Amino acid sequence: MSHSTNQSWGGRFSEPTDAFVARFTASVDFDQRMARHDIQGSIAHATMLAQVGVLSDEERDAIINGLTEIEQEIAAGEFEWSVELEDVHMNIEARLTAKIGITGKKLHTGRSRNDQVATDIRLYMREAIDLVAEELARLRSGLIELAEREADTIMPGFTHLQTAQPVTFGHHLLAWHEMLARDHERLLDCRKRANVLPLGAAALAGTTYPIDRHLTAQLLGFDRPAENSLDAVSDRDFSIEFTAFASLLLMHLSRMSEELVLWTSTQFNFINLPDRFCTGSSIMPQKKNPDVPELVRGKSGRVYGHLIGLLTLMKSQPLAYNKDNQEDKEPLFDTFDTVMGCLRAFADMVPAIESKTESMREAARGGFSTATDLADYLVRKGVAFRDAHEIVGQSVAFGIEQHKDLSDMTLAELQQFSDIIDEDVFEVLTLEGSVAARNHIGGTAPDQVRAAAQRARDALKALQAGGQ
Amino acid sequence: MSHSTNQSWGGRFSEPTDAFVARFTASVDFDQRMARHDIQGSIAHATMLAQVGVLSDEERDAIINGLTEIEQEIAAGEFEWSVELEDVHMNIEARLTAKIGITGKKLHTGRSRNDQVATDIRLYMREAIDLVAEELARLRSGLIELAEREADTIMPGFTHLQTAQPVTFGHHLLAWHEMLARDHERLLDCRKRANVLPLGAAALAGTTYPIDRHLTAQLLGFDRPAENSLDAVSDRDFSIEFTAFASLLLMHLSRMSEELVLWTSTQFNFINLPDRFCTGSSIMPQKKNPDVPELVRGKSGRVYGHLIGLLTLMKSQPLAYNKDNQEDKEPLFDTFDTVMGCLRAFADMVPAIESKTESMREAARGGFSTATDLADYLVRKGVAFRDAHEIVGQSVAFGIEQHKDLSDMTLAELQQFSDIIDEDVFEVLTLEGSVAARNHIGGTAPDQVRAAAQRARDALKALQAGGQ
Amino acid sequence: MSHSTNQSWGGRFSEPTDAFVARFTASVDFDQRMARHDIQGSIAHATMLAQVGVLSDEERDAIINGLTEIEQEIAAGEFEWSVELEDVHMNIEARLTAKIGITGKKLHTGRSRNDQVATDIRLYMREAIDLVAEELARLRSGLIELAEREADTIMPGFTHLQTAQPVTFGHHLLAWHEMLARDHERLLDCRKRANVLPLGAAALAGTTYPIDRHLTAQLLGFDRPAENSLDAVSDRDFSIEFTAFASLLLMHLSRMSEELVLWTSTQFNFINLPDRFCTGSSIMPQKKNPDVPELVRGKSGRVYGHLIGLLTLMKSQPLAYNKDNQEDKEPLFDTFDTVMGCLRAFADMVPAIESKTESMREAARGGFSTATDLADYLVRKGVAFRDAHEIVGQSVAFGIEQHKDLSDMTLAELQQFSDIIDEDVFEVLTLEGSVAARNHIGGTAPDQVRAAAQRARDALKALQAGGQ
Amino acid sequence: MSHSTNQSWGGRFSEPTDAFVARFTASVDFDQRMARHDIQGSIAHATMLAQVGVLSDEERDAIINGLTEIEQEIAAGEFEWSVELEDVHMNIEARLTAKIGITGKKLHTGRSRNDQVATDIRLYMREAIDLVAEELARLRSGLIELAEREADTIMPGFTHLQTAQPVTFGHHLLAWHEMLARDHERLLDCRKRANVLPLGAAALAGTTYPIDRHLTAQLLGFDRPAENSLDAVSDRDFSIEFTAFASLLLMHLSRMSEELVLWTSTQFNFINLPDRFCTGSSIMPQKKNPDVPELVRGKSGRVYGHLIGLLTLMKSQPLAYNKDNQEDKEPLFDTFDTVMGCLRAFADMVPAIESKTESMREAARGGFSTATDLADYLVRKGVAFRDAHEIVGQSVAFGIEQHKDLSDMTLAELQQFSDIIDEDVFEVLTLEGSVAARNHIGGTAPDQVRAAAQRARDALKALQAGGQ
Repeated sequence: MSHSTNQSWGGRFSEPTDAFVARFTASVDFDQRMARHDIQGSIAHATMLAQVGVLSDEERDAIINGLTEIEQEIAAGEFEWSVELEDVHMNIEARLTAKIGITGKKLHTGRSRNDQVATDIRLYMREAIDLVAEELARLRSGLIELAEREADTIMPGFTHLQTAQPVTFGHHLLAWHEMLARDHERLLDCRKRANVLPLGAAALAGTTYPIDRHLTAQLLGFDRPAENSLDAVSDRDFSIEFTAFASLLLMHLSRMSEELVLWTSTQFNFINLPDRFCTGSSIMPQKKNPDVPELVRGKSGRVYGHLIGLLTLMKSQPLAYNKDNQEDKEPLFDTFDTVMGCLRAFADMVPAIESKTESMREAARGGFSTATDLADYLVRKGVAFRDAHEIVGQSVAFGIEQHKDLSDMTLAELQQFSDIIDEDVFEVLTLEGSVAARNHIGGTAPDQVRAAAQRARDALKALQAGGQ
Repeated sequence: MSHSTNQSWGGRFSEPTDAFVARFTASVDFDQRMARHDIQGSIAHATMLAQVGVLSDEERDAIINGLTEIEQEIAAGEFEWSVELEDVHMNIEARLTAKIGITGKKLHTGRSRNDQVATDIRLYMREAIDLVAEELARLRSGLIELAEREADTIMPGFTHLQTAQPVTFGHHLLAWHEMLARDHERLLDCRKRANVLPLGAAALAGTTYPIDRHLTAQLLGFDRPAENSLDAVSDRDFSIEFTAFASLLLMHLSRMSEELVLWTSTQFNFINLPDRFCTGSSIMPQKKNPDVPELVRGKSGRVYGHLIGLLTLMKSQPLAYNKDNQEDKEPLFDTFDTVMGCLRAFADMVPAIESKTESMREAARGGFSTATDLADYLVRKGVAFRDAHEIVGQSVAFGIEQHKDLSDMTLAELQQFSDIIDEDVFEVLTLEGSVAARNHIGGTAPDQVRAAAQRARDALKALQAGGQ
Repeated sequence: MSHSTNQSWGGRFSEPTDAFVARFTASVDFDQRMARHDIQGSIAHATMLAQVGVLSDEERDAIINGLTEIEQEIAAGEFEWSVELEDVHMNIEARLTAKIGITGKKLHTGRSRNDQVATDIRLYMREAIDLVAEELARLRSGLIELAEREADTIMPGFTHLQTAQPVTFGHHLLAWHEMLARDHERLLDCRKRANVLPLGAAALAGTTYPIDRHLTAQLLGFDRPAENSLDAVSDRDFSIEFTAFASLLLMHLSRMSEELVLWTSTQFNFINLPDRFCTGSSIMPQKKNPDVPELVRGKSGRVYGHLIGLLTLMKSQPLAYNKDNQEDKEPLFDTFDTVMGCLRAFADMVPAIESKTESMREAARGGFSTATDLADYLVRKGVAFRDAHEIVGQSVAFGIEQHKDLSDMTLAELQQFSDIIDEDVFEVLTLEGSVAARNHIGGTAPDQVRAAAQRARDALKALQAGGQ
Repeated sequence: MSHSTNQSWGGRFSEPTDAFVARFTASVDFDQRMARHDIQGSIAHATMLAQVGVLSDEERDAIINGLTEIEQEIAAGEFEWSVELEDVHMNIEARLTAKIGITGKKLHTGRSRNDQVATDIRLYMREAIDLVAEELARLRSGLIELAEREADTIMPGFTHLQTAQPVTFGHHLLAWHEMLARDHERLLDCRKRANVLPLGAAALAGTTYPIDRHLTAQLLGFDRPAENSLDAVSDRDFSIEFTAFASLLLMHLSRMSEELVLWTSTQFNFINLPDRFCTGSSIMPQKKNPDVPELVRGKSGRVYGHLIGLLTLMKSQPLAYNKDNQEDKEPLFDTFDTVMGCLRAFADMVPAIESKTESMREAARGGFSTATDLADYLVRKGVAFRDAHEIVGQSVAFGIEQHKDLSDMTLAELQQFSDIIDEDVFEVLTLEGSVAARNHIGGTAPDQVRAAAQRARDALKALQAGGQ
């Protein structure tokens, strides 16, 4: 005699599942998030089954109506999820059967939970990708606009966090944009690999029913059916690729965040973040903390963690589906939520960044930022570069001792180190002269920044047009 | 004029926080999990403040009574958490002030949320460690008992998943136990570093109030106050150490899981897992899947991910507290939940493992598992080991060709490869002879297994006695 | 007075570098691996400088001849690398100047080590990608051929490592192929983002010399110059993308390896790996260990580690170049070496896999692998699927008790569970019937496998044609 | 007939190893680093074998003399390593046999490469731990001394990188020390678990020879023999624990590095790093880059990567030894090298840090760092803390508008916000007053810093005395 439970697989079992084990192995608490995609997939499956004659048209209609009602129940928060029913699939199927009777059970013909869940995840992920792409485009647009506005603003450029050369703030912002542009491309590359239909793989080997997978793919907007049933139910590389994209994105956002935090410090004082993006301290009344960039910077860890979690999950798994794979969903969902939150916060905040141009300019004047220009000046007057470097190095050493920047020295002072230096040196030591001279594609000259912003805008439009 | 919101830091701000930002930066959704520890810390803090004269006894009592009521409201699910109040600390403080008036605000004297949250996490973690230690001890006990029962059961030992030498099943189970024993020690080492009081560090530099940190430490059961206020509010290495412990534990559980999955396969068929730890398939009626070990194996990724997430979080953070650190809690909580679930499942399941001794024995007889014994036999008869190895290698090649194990060969067949072999060879080719001969500490002989089990039991008791 | 050392930046320094620090911060031990690419980039740079008039044609020719000689010296192992000269760039420049005098120093006009090293890495990586793509294609070809040969070989398909349904070995091999096909696509997507020219970014802001970056890009085979100088010298996302590709590839190889290890075990006994891919034991004469797949499986950790290492490296770095980035090279080089070694080993080994068809077939006959077929049979006779599932579940329970597979039962025995079962049931319980019935795209039927192999071959050709 | 190669396991093989496979699977290129430990282990093993009568005293002496000579050959760089001989063990054994004949082969009696390599790694790691502990102690000592010297130096303390409250530089340095103190403890905890003898486990099950493992343990300075042979040859958790220690250490060093980089920037300008720890730019003559802290910060990625690499390696490995484990050594070696390099660089550099006390002090005066002191002043005058917070918040808003710090305002200006403020307010607004007031254990008051430094010195001594 069989001790069947309400589970769908009781026949060969001699005792019911342990209560703790049932809870420990159930996924409905988190996979209910894919309910809409599960229903979407089931409707397409039923439509296909009717087309090939496995279901009658009446059965198909009953199933579709039932599922549509269930979708509304779920949206309205009226659906009762049951842990005993393990997962989103069995919860919905049980409800469907309660609604429309025995026909509900026919929906599972020619499929298995293995290909069903793989389909749900891909539908979920495709939607997630499209939402992320939209928010990423919004952030990119905001950056491009801000960069144009700040094309003439001069700030110090850093290497090793030491003042290096003057750059324009707009140029710096476009560096951020370039990072995001590549992330955007990676996202769309990921989408094309995710947009493939697993359904029809059934448990692992395909099914004996005369299914039409091309039709199902078309109904669900997939580019094509997956080529191999074993692969279709067992791989999750598309989720890993998405978290790898997200890790790179968060890495980039962490770099921007680091700079925003630096720039809002008293020491840098380059920008102001509006109060609405900051919080204060319960104990120190003067504090205005750049919480948003700090939090985004911290969230890089979360997403890196999900990436390594999923890679670990899949390591060494034999084909085909194993229960391990139930662990694939939470990292994916949380990665999506994190990415959306961070992008939204940045897309709102970036256009509101207020540059403190005087303070930036003052900083650019310090730190001997035009030392390279002085060296180039000497080279143009015939000094070999290595010798020019040495001459300027000595001038800087003198300046540090005397607390004077190069442009603050007198001609006589400068001439101590090389008598080739003449009055015209003061032109090349100006900030405007320095940035304007870097006038080639990729350079920091204001005109180049404006041209680059225009190209960036065009590239974004092209990607959006072609990408989805 | 100040646009203050209900937040605790409005004075210097000119506009309220953006609604999305408020939600994005709030932590109350997850840090409410530490409400009990927050209250515990506050009661100790109030007690200390009264002791040093900063609060009156009446104020202290009002605060303690108010907090005690709040704890009950929370336990009863009647507390209304508010995202506007950001975090667990402000939610409880606001409720306290609503209850007992202005005195409620005095509780925050001489502390800040920075040292408060650091204290909460350590109280939470200490409790978590004690619960994990208990469950780990239960699993260890179960393993020791099973190992004793199976001290004489013979199975093939593997290297490279190729049959290597016969071992006893009890010996194999004690290998698992040793892994866990080291994890257990690591856990207790972690506890001693976590059990230190941050409170009194205030925002970052200590406080101007005449606090008694030794008293607070004593009231909360901490070993001592933290030595440095900047360090106390900004480091989270104790959480990382806990996730590193958990990663090693899950690594070990993943290895056990891998073996359980192998052993329940049709091909190995070494053990039976009772039905209550398994689930079936909705489509394949014959399936009985070892879900619990598979899921535990998969959960290693989750915990590894949390470890790398926290390490990334802390990388390059300047002192002292940064908002990034808000990201420290969810990975810690989820690591605890995961560890507890996996340990509980294993502690329940391991004692219920049923060995299929005939099948194990049959497997041990195959794969030429006693080839090493034959080589040792030849060495004892005076053959050099390398030569003996070669002779046995050739016997095995012959056996593969003839589909005969060594013990199935006739004396004549064996003598083809060395005429030193005699009738007494068949003794050393028996499984019992092989395992019994490995009779030293750490060896697989049944007597050694029983002695090792006894030592394991003693070590566990000693650790439990001294550890906490 | 300046204490200059032989370093290129001595002027402003008052003491020489500490000897340990010089060694600790030098990179020449590992970045000499990019010497060829460094020279390639320098030749293009010199050619461009002459074209725009910064160098004379004679200077250009002297430089190119000098560099060509140096390349030969390096190839011949005659070049003396010096740690004092820090890195590959300074070593080569110093040698050039030694060879051709002052003109050698002019090579560095309009560039900096920051854009130079970024260019070198991209040249290195592009070459690496092309070599990996070639080896990946070789492995894919080998898999496709083997799959065609094994299109009719029947083996058990597994889920949860429990026997699920019969599949064809060729089908299983094509599942492997599909994984690799996606990896291959990812690799080529990565290539297009890497193939962009950083040179001209100079230190961080561009240069004041009238450079022609389009020309340099064209000379080096890059698709275009990088759009932003700050981004060009500071990002390493292309290297991370490569290690993410590699991590997915190694994940896939680890899954194949796991299966190869299982299949060569005595318990599975599905395949033979030729002796030349295996090693033995110094102590156990019978051992033949599947070292290659084990080692490849283990190497997944190495590559995952490099991925997380690089992600960590870049986290929170402010623009532009920081010394941290010196750590970008070793993980990249080792990832390339690891990937090439693993692919070569697999591309050699896979075509040599010998299937043990009898043993596979025997395994497929066990484990009640055709239980789903029996359920489908009942459904076709009018039984509802859930009822059919229950009936078959009970038959399996009986079979376990009686040690009989379904196809070994008599009709009378089967009819105990449903009197609808008739003589024709034995057809559906055959292995050939089971696999042939899964006859749709992605299904395991031999004809589908052959068609899929042909499509796989076409897809590979198309990718190779278009990809590079 | 056997095609044996010069390998130790040829008998059952029918073809030699593929040349590429031989190279791919060989480990001698990196495991030769353990040659000294291998010899040390072999000498102890031989001594024990003679003690129990398996070797004669003459054989023992011949072996020990041979091994001692080989050690000298290796130290002198005269040893010829052979890839054909696979690993360090076979290389040394082959050389021994070449030197002393057949007796050399007897050394391998009662052991296997599995327990041999596990022993070698543990000997290597124990030595590594002791060297790291020594360097860590040197860095701690340097920090303590510097902290004492800087006990009275005032700098701004930060949270969220926003000026928070004044702290003493010595206090900040002791925060660093506390981090390292915990790392030091973790290192010694790791040592105790590593210091256990695997030898005697043989291939996996123990050996049939009458070995005395307690004696071998004693000869090698191990605390005890490992309890279980299967565990002894297959686990590598001690290596992972070491890399987890190293990851925490590098995390801490990355935080210090971040601060050193910030502090040497023109914007912060808090300290000077002597030129010998810095490098310059080949193009920008003014640059002096904090290379050492940057590089150390970057190396955190390397070590995190090794940690995750080893965790991945061990995930899901069935017992006992698998070839995967060959991948355990390189990450361990590189972690050790990285840790030693970083510690040495820091231990040299930290005592040489020159504080720019005027600049620090000036910064502490800005950013409204004494706002909390003003609030505390109001509380002491009877204002409720939340109201005081609001009053000070408004004063700060006024100060930002007027570009005046609190201590720069006139009494009349301050009284705009509360008429309770009186002349005595200017005392609490001084930096000295602020830091001196935080006068409890863990607080930033100079006297507390001096006391804490003394306790730190005592704790270090105690750890060094008891630890090893």
